Amino acid sequence: MGEFDLIARYFARAGAEVSGSTVALGIGDDCAVLTPAPGHQWLVSTDMLVEGRHFLSTVSPRRLGHKALAVNLSDLAASGGTPRACFLSLALPRVDEAFLAGFSEGLFALADAHGVVLAGGDTTAGPLNINITIMGEVPTGQALLRSGARVDDDLWVSGTLGDARLALEVFRGHVSLPGEAFESVRHAMELPQPRVALGRALRGLATSAIDVSDGLAGDLGHILNRSGVGAQLHLADLPRSSILGAMPEDLQRLCLLTGGDDYELVFTASAQDRSRVLEAGRMSATPVYRIGRMESQPGLRVLDGQGRVLDLSLQSFDHFKS
Amino acid sequence: MGEFDLIARYFARAGAEVSGSTVALGIGDDCAVLTPAPGHQWLVSTDMLVEGRHFLSTVSPRRLGHKALAVNLSDLAASGGTPRACFLSLALPRVDEAFLAGFSEGLFALADAHGVVLAGGDTTAGPLNINITIMGEVPTGQALLRSGARVDDDLWVSGTLGDARLALEVFRGHVSLPGEAFESVRHAMELPQPRVALGRALRGLATSAIDVSDGLAGDLGHILNRSGVGAQLHLADLPRSSILGAMPEDLQRLCLLTGGDDYELVFTASAQDRSRVLEAGRMSATPVYRIGRMESQPGLRVLDGQGRVLDLSLQSFDHFKS
Repeated sequence: MGEFDLIARYFARAGAEVSGSTVALGIGDDCAVLTPAPGHQWLVSTDMLVEGRHFLSTVSPRRLGHKALAVNLSDLAASGGTPRACFLSLALPRVDEAFLAGFSEGLFALADAHGVVLAGGDTTAGPLNINITIMGEVPTGQALLRSGARVDDDLWVSGTLGDARLALEVFRGHVSLPGEAFESVRHAMELPQPRVALGRALRGLATSAIDVSDGLAGDLGHILNRSGVGAQLHLADLPRSSILGAMPEDLQRLCLLTGGDDYELVFTASAQDRSRVLEAGRMSATPVYRIGRMESQPGLRVLDGQGRVLDLSLQSFDHFKS
Repeated sequence: MGEFDLIARYFARAGAEVSGSTVALGIGDDCAVLTPAPGHQWLVSTDMLVEGRHFLSTVSPRRLGHKALAVNLSDLAASGGTPRACFLSLALPRVDEAFLAGFSEGLFALADAHGVVLAGGDTTAGPLNINITIMGEVPTGQALLRSGARVDDDLWVSGTLGDARLALEVFRGHVSLPGEAFESVRHAMELPQPRVALGRALRGLATSAIDVSDGLAGDLGHILNRSGVGAQLHLADLPRSSILGAMPEDLQRLCLLTGGDDYELVFTASAQDRSRVLEAGRMSATPVYRIGRMESQPGLRVLDGQGRVLDLSLQSFDHFKS
């Protein structure tokens, strides 16, 4: 099967060319043509996934298709955007129809759930590599940025942290879990749910936001740096599953603070807006937890049960370090 | 050097965050924020480059940075777009500062020449892979498509065809050339000049357009399929360099029709607009040549010097076939 047959069979869907007024022309020309909505800006992000680094060879193609789009949608969620279109570049060692069928199924299932059109892309032979560029819209000036956190703002996080990292530790043979518990944390690692609805609900409310892809400590650090503030949080306040909560303390700490692959949102909001944030969580059916507050003293301070500052020599996941 | 240091050192340039009103926010947040110009649509295209398939290991990093952006700009040129922003995803086996310095230099030199802002991207460790997503603008409804060619339209091509393929044949050891001639065709292969100015000049004039990346016969085939027409052209009319013109007939034919990597525009226009097309070429300082005409009979007919139809069992370059 050649490149054009592959695209036609797995990726060029009937009806994909027109979706409302946004995507005027999709797959099948040199460029996709997108019509902006009046009074809106475009949000654009791109993520590249490589085997062994962003996913394991054991992942099913369907879950991989889901995850490749999910990590991009998560960036859009952190900016408060409404997803519109995505572009998929795919390098494959060979044409593997079982892989392509599963991968495209997983990708389209999540795309449909969020109203995203696959509007273009590229395929080539080469070592397995998946790159997706996501585009979404936001009313002009309402994008959530990393730079708006203020001293005394509340610090919030959605969902639970650390299960994806716990699953990775099982795959690495460092931890063992009973079958059902393993399937649960594996689900968190392989089928992350991007917090798109929450991100939209936080427009005009959150003062800053980022998604947790490299670990809470590292990603929160980007908010601190860009906003010129510090933060304090209590380790005990970090939301975690009952499975992670039953693990040894040091493993919990590793998974919660430096886990990576959580795809939850960490964000700040004025303490006066506490009830509005809780309402945004309810409206978007997303649990949100207040975990700390912003301070003028630079840096992140994580406190243990006795109020002592923990040593954070742990590093966030950096793709060229670990 | 970690991922964030790498981005800061080679890709996050001061001044890249704001460029006119288009890119409101660039590198350094979850998403880039782009402000659309009133009355315009966005054009988006993405291309993935893999070593051994889209470039040879012998190419200099600087030329590779140029080419990775050039092939994307070429897609935008074929749609008549004005380039605005690009997004770079880069997988590297290891942090190689000499590579990164050269690559970013070549990429930015071409980006600056076309007013393109590097507005975001992703870096990771992995087998060398370069993906760029390009975004540009076009006045609403004026994008050049593959689907508008009509019977009796003239068929045109820009520049010369086949030199990049001739260079590849030298690298493969199938052909030998004197040093100066080799450098010239190697230049064509490694430093293609995207025909952005010509594409813009053809707005409202060309009835269809595509860029020649996989070979004239194959890419023209996309216009024929999407437009529901056929075409006839004379092999002798295809523009070629004096170097290619001195090669054996069968090699010339291979390079001209199925060469690939030409990044010239092939386009159609009404025969009544012949002088306007020549003027568009002059205004954009791009040579344009009339090479045939569109017909109602489906398919492509290439005629030799005696007016006989050549056998086109030659195939366009397909990334999963050759």
